[in-house]
Amino acid sequence: MDMFMMRNGKYVLNLISFVLIVFGGSVHSTIPIRTLSQDRPNRSNGPTFARWLVSENTWGVLSTIADDLGGAPFGDVVSYSDGEPYHGTGIPYFYLTTLDPTARYALKDHRSSFTISEYPLGTCGKIDPENPTCSKITLTGKLNEVEAKSEEAGMAKKALFSKHVEMKNWPKDHTFKVYKLDIEDIFLIDFYGGSKSVTVDQYFLPKNEGRQE
Amino acid sequence: MDMFMMRNGKYVLNLISFVLIVFGGSVHSTIPIRTLSQDRPNRSNGPTFARWLVSENTWGVLSTIADDLGGAPFGDVVSYSDGEPYHGTGIPYFYLTTLDPTARYALKDHRSSFTISEYPLGTCGKIDPENPTCSKITLTGKLNEVEAKSEEAGMAKKALFSKHVEMKNWPKDHTFKVYKLDIEDIFLIDFYGGSKSVTVDQYFLPKNEGRQE
Repeated sequence: MDMFMMRNGKYVLNLISFVLIVFGGSVHSTIPIRTLSQDRPNRSNGPTFARWLVSENTWGVLSTIADDLGGAPFGDVVSYSDGEPYHGTGIPYFYLTTLDPTARYALKDHRSSFTISEYPLGTCGKIDPENPTCSKITLTGKLNEVEAKSEEAGMAKKALFSKHVEMKNWPKDHTFKVYKLDIEDIFLIDFYGGSKSVTVDQYFLPKNEGRQE
Repeated sequence: MDMFMMRNGKYVLNLISFVLIVFGGSVHSTIPIRTLSQDRPNRSNGPTFARWLVSENTWGVLSTIADDLGGAPFGDVVSYSDGEPYHGTGIPYFYLTTLDPTARYALKDHRSSFTISEYPLGTCGKIDPENPTCSKITLTGKLNEVEAKSEEAGMAKKALFSKHVEMKNWPKDHTFKVYKLDIEDIFLIDFYGGSKSVTVDQYFLPKNEGRQE
């Protein structure tokens, strides 16, 4: 019901326009709709832009070190959530099983990064996914399991299940567990001129205490 | 336009439902339209499925080892091409500049992986991006620069520019160069039950010599 909680109708209008345009044409994609909670922020504010990109997206690539592949970096497509809609924390939470290599690798070597592209949000227009005006972020740090009985794990599950409805029904015998990336470095590209300096402190500054809203 | 402005979504819901019912389809996103060259193959044939996924997609995450981030794996959103449409080689070619960290990292440590999700193709339906029936592939190997004057570099540029039209106009002073991933390991998930065994030899078997077309 996210789309109905918006404060103004701009996206609904865009959605309806788009539906009309798409159905007027011959070829169209079938990607389920993504409704954005917040407008794309001004890119002059790096921390706010970074938080927006992390909160609005739902999947990315989680990279770990593959000890059984000569220590190569191993990127894996995963879903994530940084909070329930409108309540992003900036921390990417994952729901992983050691049946998959990524969780196994992380338990041996916590070094990790998580990479998100703006491209799937549909806000890049017709430019190429590698064009720097289509933003991308790489959060580098340590991938750690969240203590199963903790308050944080409960919060993270709510965050994950709110954006990934089927997750809560994933097989119990796969023993999915909550993981999080403890962020140490932020690499953000959202325009020409190289990466934008965003410190971890700036990224986690609470709303209304420095972040432009 | 009042009906778009209200916070209570009831009328918006009705309007959207009406538009959808009238136009008779499912909901669609605003991501630029991707037209697929080939139908999604039968997933019982791992090598063919892997080649399809690599040939049909246009972007992914290229992971390298970040020597300036404590040797962490660093995933970067990049565009790629494995050949002109209908002429995929299976080899992902990239157009990278050492102004970006990924190319710099690769020149110091060639270990790398390239990760692609089926999700942006729009062929996964309404399932979650992490659902194993929405396929994903991680190609692990060495990321190497292709000799600039070589026939392969010329072919790779044609392959890249055919799928990324703006690339050929990217700034000359950024000295973009062609790189390729020399694949050593293939991790393919396209269904329940864990990764599918696809050897590099099977992946590169020419058409009509073992791959189901």
